[in-house]
Amino acid sequence: MAKPKVFEKPTGLKDYLPDAVAKLRQIERDVLSCMSGWGYEQMITPTLEYYDTVGVASSTSDAKLFKLLNHRGQTLVLRSDMTAPIARVVSSLLKATDFPLRLSYHANIFRAFEEEAGRDAEFFQTGVELVGDPSPEADAEIVALAVASLKAAGVSRFKIAIGHVGFLKGLLDETLPDQEEEQSQLKACLLGRDYVGYREQLRQLSLEEHVRQELEYILRLRGGQEICEQAMKLSSNESAQASIRHLCEVWDALVEYGVSEHVLIDLTMIGDFSYYTGMTFEGYASDHGFPVASGGRYDNLLSQFGRPAPATGFAMKTNRILELLSYGEDTGGERVLIAYDRAGRAEALAEAQRLRAEGVTVVTERMGIGFTPPVQANGCYKYGGTVYSDFHRFDGQKRKEAASNE
Amino acid sequence: MAKPKVFEKPTGLKDYLPDAVAKLRQIERDVLSCMSGWGYEQMITPTLEYYDTVGVASSTSDAKLFKLLNHRGQTLVLRSDMTAPIARVVSSLLKATDFPLRLSYHANIFRAFEEEAGRDAEFFQTGVELVGDPSPEADAEIVALAVASLKAAGVSRFKIAIGHVGFLKGLLDETLPDQEEEQSQLKACLLGRDYVGYREQLRQLSLEEHVRQELEYILRLRGGQEICEQAMKLSSNESAQASIRHLCEVWDALVEYGVSEHVLIDLTMIGDFSYYTGMTFEGYASDHGFPVASGGRYDNLLSQFGRPAPATGFAMKTNRILELLSYGEDTGGERVLIAYDRAGRAEALAEAQRLRAEGVTVVTERMGIGFTPPVQANGCYKYGGTVYSDFHRFDGQKRKEAASNE
Repeated sequence: MAKPKVFEKPTGLKDYLPDAVAKLRQIERDVLSCMSGWGYEQMITPTLEYYDTVGVASSTSDAKLFKLLNHRGQTLVLRSDMTAPIARVVSSLLKATDFPLRLSYHANIFRAFEEEAGRDAEFFQTGVELVGDPSPEADAEIVALAVASLKAAGVSRFKIAIGHVGFLKGLLDETLPDQEEEQSQLKACLLGRDYVGYREQLRQLSLEEHVRQELEYILRLRGGQEICEQAMKLSSNESAQASIRHLCEVWDALVEYGVSEHVLIDLTMIGDFSYYTGMTFEGYASDHGFPVASGGRYDNLLSQFGRPAPATGFAMKTNRILELLSYGEDTGGERVLIAYDRAGRAEALAEAQRLRAEGVTVVTERMGIGFTPPVQANGCYKYGGTVYSDFHRFDGQKRKEAASNE
Repeated sequence: MAKPKVFEKPTGLKDYLPDAVAKLRQIERDVLSCMSGWGYEQMITPTLEYYDTVGVASSTSDAKLFKLLNHRGQTLVLRSDMTAPIARVVSSLLKATDFPLRLSYHANIFRAFEEEAGRDAEFFQTGVELVGDPSPEADAEIVALAVASLKAAGVSRFKIAIGHVGFLKGLLDETLPDQEEEQSQLKACLLGRDYVGYREQLRQLSLEEHVRQELEYILRLRGGQEICEQAMKLSSNESAQASIRHLCEVWDALVEYGVSEHVLIDLTMIGDFSYYTGMTFEGYASDHGFPVASGGRYDNLLSQFGRPAPATGFAMKTNRILELLSYGEDTGGERVLIAYDRAGRAEALAEAQRLRAEGVTVVTERMGIGFTPPVQANGCYKYGGTVYSDFHRFDGQKRKEAASNE
């Protein structure tokens, strides 16, 4: 195996230069501040977790987990989501704290093999978990907070598609009873938004024509509240109907949150985590193919950590939002370069301190051998790779000579 | 091997609950803002790096690196410092950017096996690198910025001990020529601040009495600028003398920075990284055994990444500062709980939105089955695990009934 070159980093991993970091930090700060305003308090959990606990509960496929052994021979994973680690904390360190719990996070997340699809193997998520509340209002709060968070991040045009895993499950159990493999194939098509493949699958199954039409009809179940009424007629399965009733109540609350213009019901939505048990949603920015936020209800995950409780939450895909937003303009304030010689140093450093206390960014440089004075252009000064709004020279030696010549 | 219990996390790793996170985030924000005021721009590098490049350059012993294999069979490491990754970026992505470069970071760092010493296997560092400037002024800037950063973090009483790896190297080469093992043993004692062991080692070596006295005398070389004069007399070795001259110039600049009250010269200081080549320093908070900041000059590291350049920098040990500072008081502002029934919901949600826009933290709760009203105490309201400054009820149903009874 050829050794990597000295300047290389592993594939799928990124360096973020100052302009990108400034923007990423701004998104992080604004979104966490928004979440804090809704009463969500921030947590930090370790990057490494046990494979047998959080690794398994995270429902990330084994091939996508970064695994390593500790010196005791236990398998550790780099966290592949934050929902499972927070479920662990809620069941241990926060065991004695009453529900409902509102927790937030900003964290880096890891998925091995993603680089093969051109995706990041390490990326950032900013999200919340609302634990202990089974109500449609709790789901609506999460969706409304996702809307507020996307706005806080600076995303102006987006849609959130909400669905319910129980609807599709009920419909498929009714129309394709005990045909698990066929059900899985159809679900996989919907998860990948491969509607052509979905129709193809339906044609290949030996279904009565009215059943095939029913299953094809769900592709058209996208829209506002009227979708709930249409879906109610489509299936008499009890689970499917209960799911639609829950979704209607979420919708009603979203109308009262004043965010329904951003939301549409999409009953083909099933969510990308196997632990979802109820409402799920994905947020799409206009003209952007990948979801920028996703979430849903997971009422069975907490019981895996010994404290059964209903829960709902979402994560914003912070990197994708970073890609959406333009950056590059220096949003910082005044930036001053101060150059000095040995005799002018004390005065120069004092001036730098004074300006910094006023909030000005100040770089100080000794004018030694190799010092190249800044280049002036457009009223600014370019020095090194940086542009400065002002340049001061503290030439103590020259001043002294001038004084003694007088 | 027994499986870990569901609620367990790997040893040496921590969960941070909201009070600790709030404080940690505040330190992070204040220190990065201070660094930004000195012209240092923030970078983010990946958590994972190649073992053969950054892993080796980091000078962390192999046993202390968390290692894993990627699916191509390459060995990756969890970063064990930020200096080597930044050296990699300076030599690749920033290759065309002129020196001097001023870069900052806040990052989590990993050291395997640390948990055996009761230390964290994952911890936070906030630091800077100044690349491309060999002058004593550059070293002084780093020390002065360390002073400013510790103050920004809220540490009020601390001392920074500065030394120079070249002084001890010169002195030992003069007194114990070609005795590498003996030199290493003595250095190990000084690194561990084991002065008793150092004296013991000296006694066991067959040294002329005046040499033994010279080597023992360095333990007393701690203090202000007078230490430089004493050290100059101690060794006539050229490397030792050049090191002291450099340190004197750093001291002079620190006096002009106005921070010398926080600094002492300590010639037993050699720094805990093998890549240090010049001045090194450690910052100690009063009554705290471990260093809270450390740094130094590393003029040979960049050449390992193909862009030879002098460099100097420091890292603040953010977790230790978190331990130093008291926290627990809620520094947040107003926090309001709004409870509603179905008929009062629209009004309640609108009020929540209005208050949040004013900067108030608002939690909304549906008064359904299982809702327990908050407990009032000391003018506050306790609900779940949280204390609220105010509580509003939007009882729409009752109000409607009251209205219809009139």
